[in-house]
Amino acid sequence: MSPRTIGVTEVALRDAHQSLMATRMALEDMVDACADIDRAGYWSVECWGGATYDSCIRFLNEDPWQRLRTFRELMPNSRLQMLLRGQNLLGYRHYEDMVVEKFVEKSAENGMDVFRVFDALNDPRNMAHAMAAVKKVGKHAQGTICYTISPLHTTEGYIKLAGQLLDMGAESIALKDMAALLQPQPAYDIVRGIKETYGEDVQINVHCHSTTGVTLVSLMKAIEAGADVVDTAISSMSLGPGHNPTESLVAMLEGTDYTTDLDMDALLRIRDHFAAVRPKYKEFESATLVDTDIFSSQIPGGMLSNMESQLRAQGAGDRIREVMAEVPLVKADAGHPPLVTPSSQIVGTQAVFNVLMGRYKVLTGEFADLMLGYYGECLGERNPEVVEIAHAQTKKEPITERPADLLEPEWDKLVAEASALDGFDGSDTDVLTYAMFPSVAPGFLASRDEGPKNVGKTPEQLKAEATSSSDAGRAVQGPITYKVSLGGRENTVTVERA
Amino acid sequence: MSPRTIGVTEVALRDAHQSLMATRMALEDMVDACADIDRAGYWSVECWGGATYDSCIRFLNEDPWQRLRTFRELMPNSRLQMLLRGQNLLGYRHYEDMVVEKFVEKSAENGMDVFRVFDALNDPRNMAHAMAAVKKVGKHAQGTICYTISPLHTTEGYIKLAGQLLDMGAESIALKDMAALLQPQPAYDIVRGIKETYGEDVQINVHCHSTTGVTLVSLMKAIEAGADVVDTAISSMSLGPGHNPTESLVAMLEGTDYTTDLDMDALLRIRDHFAAVRPKYKEFESATLVDTDIFSSQIPGGMLSNMESQLRAQGAGDRIREVMAEVPLVKADAGHPPLVTPSSQIVGTQAVFNVLMGRYKVLTGEFADLMLGYYGECLGERNPEVVEIAHAQTKKEPITERPADLLEPEWDKLVAEASALDGFDGSDTDVLTYAMFPSVAPGFLASRDEGPKNVGKTPEQLKAEATSSSDAGRAVQGPITYKVSLGGRENTVTVERA
Repeated sequence: MSPRTIGVTEVALRDAHQSLMATRMALEDMVDACADIDRAGYWSVECWGGATYDSCIRFLNEDPWQRLRTFRELMPNSRLQMLLRGQNLLGYRHYEDMVVEKFVEKSAENGMDVFRVFDALNDPRNMAHAMAAVKKVGKHAQGTICYTISPLHTTEGYIKLAGQLLDMGAESIALKDMAALLQPQPAYDIVRGIKETYGEDVQINVHCHSTTGVTLVSLMKAIEAGADVVDTAISSMSLGPGHNPTESLVAMLEGTDYTTDLDMDALLRIRDHFAAVRPKYKEFESATLVDTDIFSSQIPGGMLSNMESQLRAQGAGDRIREVMAEVPLVKADAGHPPLVTPSSQIVGTQAVFNVLMGRYKVLTGEFADLMLGYYGECLGERNPEVVEIAHAQTKKEPITERPADLLEPEWDKLVAEASALDGFDGSDTDVLTYAMFPSVAPGFLASRDEGPKNVGKTPEQLKAEATSSSDAGRAVQGPITYKVSLGGRENTVTVERA
Repeated sequence: MSPRTIGVTEVALRDAHQSLMATRMALEDMVDACADIDRAGYWSVECWGGATYDSCIRFLNEDPWQRLRTFRELMPNSRLQMLLRGQNLLGYRHYEDMVVEKFVEKSAENGMDVFRVFDALNDPRNMAHAMAAVKKVGKHAQGTICYTISPLHTTEGYIKLAGQLLDMGAESIALKDMAALLQPQPAYDIVRGIKETYGEDVQINVHCHSTTGVTLVSLMKAIEAGADVVDTAISSMSLGPGHNPTESLVAMLEGTDYTTDLDMDALLRIRDHFAAVRPKYKEFESATLVDTDIFSSQIPGGMLSNMESQLRAQGAGDRIREVMAEVPLVKADAGHPPLVTPSSQIVGTQAVFNVLMGRYKVLTGEFADLMLGYYGECLGERNPEVVEIAHAQTKKEPITERPADLLEPEWDKLVAEASALDGFDGSDTDVLTYAMFPSVAPGFLASRDEGPKNVGKTPEQLKAEATSSSDAGRAVQGPITYKVSLGGRENTVTVERA
């Protein structure tokens, strides 16, 4: 029997640099790898969406739509893939349906093929309209399960959610493990359960981060259970809070009943390209190599460091243990949302408030909205007492309908507001940029003509730093003699640690 | 059915720092972790042998026997484990049998429990005497298979070697993958094959490095195939050229048919201990995070960098590709030895010689010895033409007997020579130190009284470096103005890169 071919999604151009270097990679550091990526034989190339749009206009003075068009041109043979936050698009609020449709239509027009649609709360109603819009333009709508662990989250629950996504027309199901929590056994059970319940021909894509060091095994188990496509990052853009290395996946499957059909020569060239690029962005990298704390604490690393800096800002850096103990309570009161952006920030900040000011004495606006249903529904019931507090503090009514159903049509208003901005070029894509990032867009549109800027270091800077840093290292060891000119006289000064 | 318990060998105290930081960790940086290691529930604690002995006397002015006794005292409930290079003991030549017996006897006397006995060429005759000596003192003799990939190395061959080791009285079999070459399918096949051939109750320990990023999956497959014990390193001493993280192994098995029974609280304290220690030895660390090149090149990373520096020293740094192409030919001519210390250096250096001076125009003494049988037998036949060249160059005869059979009794001579050394304390262990490292021992014995030295950085040094390195980073960006007092007068000086 010939081995079954497993598809691979390469995430180097999107999630890898988002996870490893705060989404700071400039397009110019990617273009030279595109020809090899295009010929390596990936099932798809994740290259857009997530935080890349925000980062483009906020840090890189780069038009995200131009980036998309460039990828389309440089990778004519590849499925381009994006991560789309359902009704939130790439922004941080719910958008009215017509804005969602416009965004999907323009993305498809500019070259996007596969839309991975997710919602932080796993509320299918927040994904439905975006998925319908993708299908309307004839592109691949991928429904997403955000994986988390809680007393309420079960294999059966995830299988049921997959069914809801399929009913909404999902062409494939993504099992998305953004916190590296997906252990081998549940990976196997969920994939197998979906296949057995809805048919072996349901396409399942599995996305894991590598933070806990265990998820390459989870990918193996998912593949054994029937997963069709898995996500990896080329080795030079892998590991830590990022993803498992693409070449390791290839090596893992050698000799088994599975294979990848990837072109190893192309992979090695892609690897070498990014091995040269990665050091430029070192200042944005976290030091995490492997961290399994999340299995016991249930608190993702990024959320923990957020809470720590909030506490320090209040001069209460020593109270992190209390906050860590508070998080599970707040999470349970909120109905056990997965802790990912934005729910991780919302729950974490409320836990900090609870410890500093007394439990639920003060609610953040976002936490009140979460409790009142304005982000959608979670798996668990929300604590009615806390819902009452939210109502009392905000005077807003709890809702049960889809949050976007409360919104008035807003496209014309967005067009009008965008039109008033310096540098607005009259396009729908500029309107969308304004819609998603109203406070950042004006500055970006005004400065767009100056062209992209690269926040990575130049080779010269890296070299200079290496030199002076090794000088610094030496300075600690023993005396150094300098010549110093002062007032026209030359002096010899010897410096030594006291 | 209750899950099967998998034993774990913690390698933090030996192989982890050998692989990550050139074996430089001082005993004083380990002692505070020992109580937790002792209570964590490991099957064994690898803490001695390999390169630690050499490093103790060469770099740390530390008596390795005192280190062993300290571990014995601090970890009374643990099986202490060492890596022993068969007839080479911990040195770089073959020793006469009585020296081997003395070494094993003294190691047992000072606290060693489990002896992992290996030979770089997998020649059972080089392991036999050491294993017999271990059994004679009533300790655990573990026979070792060094895993490599070649046209001659097959699953069947490894299974056969396991049988030879069991016939020699091995209480357990170690499958040792020092180059992270062991992929999941062969891991499964070899372990299953050994169990099916020799019985399910044959204990199999699996040791993998993590360099290629794939071997935690190999451990999973080995466990599914019946492996009893696996080797890992606590996460803060893991990954890169080291090993898979202990906590990730625990997480990997949760919910499966296997479990580890390790005490997670103890693991976290061990982790935190070494997380604080590791930065002290940063200057000894390699930058390798993951490297899958070895699957195609068959050349371990350490061997490659050795060859590169040899070439550079000859002003021929641009000829590395030729040397890389030469390695497989030299390896085949030598009968396909696994490429590990010392065979990797011997083959690599000869490949460099071949490229620089013409194929086999000049043989190194070591390569000639390898070709003439003085290191033992490999799986493959040696190229008779190259054997003839070795004979012609060295005038030594090829041998087929066990190399140590040619040696005269040498213990009394070693005692006499050691007795003449400054600082010799009259003990057998001092004689053994001299026997294994005759050029290093004299200096060590003479300076032993000065006590151990720590080559790691102090917290103060680390702090000073962090400060001056970030100053250095700033200095590159632009001019800095200092106030400088000199001869009682204050001046303003602006410094800028020329």
